Amino acid sequence: MTSRNVSCFPEARKVAIFGGTHGNEMSGVMLVNMWKKNGAEIQRNGMVTKPFITNPRAVEKCTRYIDTDLNRAFTPENLSGPWDEGLPYEVQRAKEINQMFGPKGSPDAYDVIFDLHNTTSNMGSTLILESSTDHFNLQMVHYIKKSIAPASCAVLLNEHPHLKYSTSRSVAKHPIGLEVGPQPQGVLRSNIFESMRDILKHALDFIELFNTGVEFPPCAVDVFKVIERVDYPRDANGNITAMVHPHLQDCDWEPLNPGDPMFQTFDGRAVPYQGSSPVYPTFINEAAYYEKQQAFVITRREMLAATAIRKSI
Amino acid sequence: MTSRNVSCFPEARKVAIFGGTHGNEMSGVMLVNMWKKNGAEIQRNGMVTKPFITNPRAVEKCTRYIDTDLNRAFTPENLSGPWDEGLPYEVQRAKEINQMFGPKGSPDAYDVIFDLHNTTSNMGSTLILESSTDHFNLQMVHYIKKSIAPASCAVLLNEHPHLKYSTSRSVAKHPIGLEVGPQPQGVLRSNIFESMRDILKHALDFIELFNTGVEFPPCAVDVFKVIERVDYPRDANGNITAMVHPHLQDCDWEPLNPGDPMFQTFDGRAVPYQGSSPVYPTFINEAAYYEKQQAFVITRREMLAATAIRKSI
Repeated sequence: MTSRNVSCFPEARKVAIFGGTHGNEMSGVMLVNMWKKNGAEIQRNGMVTKPFITNPRAVEKCTRYIDTDLNRAFTPENLSGPWDEGLPYEVQRAKEINQMFGPKGSPDAYDVIFDLHNTTSNMGSTLILESSTDHFNLQMVHYIKKSIAPASCAVLLNEHPHLKYSTSRSVAKHPIGLEVGPQPQGVLRSNIFESMRDILKHALDFIELFNTGVEFPPCAVDVFKVIERVDYPRDANGNITAMVHPHLQDCDWEPLNPGDPMFQTFDGRAVPYQGSSPVYPTFINEAAYYEKQQAFVITRREMLAATAIRKSI
Repeated sequence: MTSRNVSCFPEARKVAIFGGTHGNEMSGVMLVNMWKKNGAEIQRNGMVTKPFITNPRAVEKCTRYIDTDLNRAFTPENLSGPWDEGLPYEVQRAKEINQMFGPKGSPDAYDVIFDLHNTTSNMGSTLILESSTDHFNLQMVHYIKKSIAPASCAVLLNEHPHLKYSTSRSVAKHPIGLEVGPQPQGVLRSNIFESMRDILKHALDFIELFNTGVEFPPCAVDVFKVIERVDYPRDANGNITAMVHPHLQDCDWEPLNPGDPMFQTFDGRAVPYQGSSPVYPTFINEAAYYEKQQAFVITRREMLAATAIRKSI
């Protein structure tokens, strides 16, 4: 027999589901509030699954954040700096969440955190990974994709050295984002709600199976890797001077080829993509990213190899 | 010859286009800002067309309002009460706008005000009227509908004794709302932007033609008349317990028949419509109306008769 490369991980007994990291993304807010009242649907044998509203003040005001974006606030500086009542609300909150579910990078940290998000972009269901070498997470997304077929679910990999950001879920050993759209901020659509709920169900099933000792064989995972942000054309005052082109709008995950139109100026001129090879845009025309100077993000498609995994004895 | 019933109106020389009455409804904000820089597109012979941002602080923050909804603030009490620096921002602003474009109900008021709005609902292009007997406006919407065909444009009539509200545009002699969707708050979509722009063009063409002395013959206008607001099912704490049903979502202007599902509870139960005859829902699942306890508004379809009109000599 040839030797087999199997990655072993401890059982995943502490799992959290975050909603309301952005207070106006309603599917996660409503699912988490529902599960806080009755968690039967998210309980699995041998695990504790904790539904948690991360930014309750933003949820109450139905706004993305109060002082600063919570999903960018889990930096080493914020988490290690001294407590101060004058800190921005979300920085205080990041410190609290890090104490409850971390500390980030420590053995005590939660095993898995799912963070539930909505986007105004036509992205469908998307799982967001922060590492190409977390074989536990790669196996989980592979399991989810198989389980929900023929429905589909893209995988976005953000491990870009400059574009990766300090997410709420990054407190966990295995952080995983779930982004479902299109859904306007402040709106709850039943189709988006049910898609998110279904993916969570399969994710929790995977963890339960893993904990019982099932070995998952090697697999390949098709991912879209973040390469670059593209801003709207702007004038000297920072005001946008063009819109996402109608041929690009709603075409998340579809190839954008050199010469294809990206933007349409207010006087009707098309601005073409001038890269040298096809790319896959996503987060196209996301409401929350106007202030982040981002019209969409460019990705490239890659196949990641996941080793076999099983729980460590 | 039989006598002819022709309504005569003075020339419409003072016209305004309001954007940003809700600061996160981007088509109107961007069109008005564009026209403030270069108004050639909205100028017509013998008229002054003034593009105007009504709620600049809300636009700057990309939020619906600062203290209170500006589009509900033009009440007689607000407009006639004493000035006070402690008044809510939008009440102060309503008083200023009433001075600039009114006073409401006076001979000095602007002739026509277009107020540009977006909705997250799948309403397409919608013209909103506040009176079934303003023959000038009825002729205008008839002209617009003919001009944009085969594109379509619904007409919503809100003259319900309790549900009509005190709009920004109500300062004018002929107030007309333009509501285009679906578009998430804080997002600018090129298709919505161009639809709104095109309708404004035809509306201004109509006024110019009227001013030159063209007589418009009698016509009939198909309108949807506001009858009733329907709220989401809620628990004792006011939290919603159901979503708009997937069979109703995005079906603005389509008939809802007795027994058709309206809502879907979080545990999957359908809540049917229990009225006695078909109605036409609109503003279905509009983001801004959750706080107004409104899941959609019920309308009935009516034909309004417009008399012939021409300008008074």
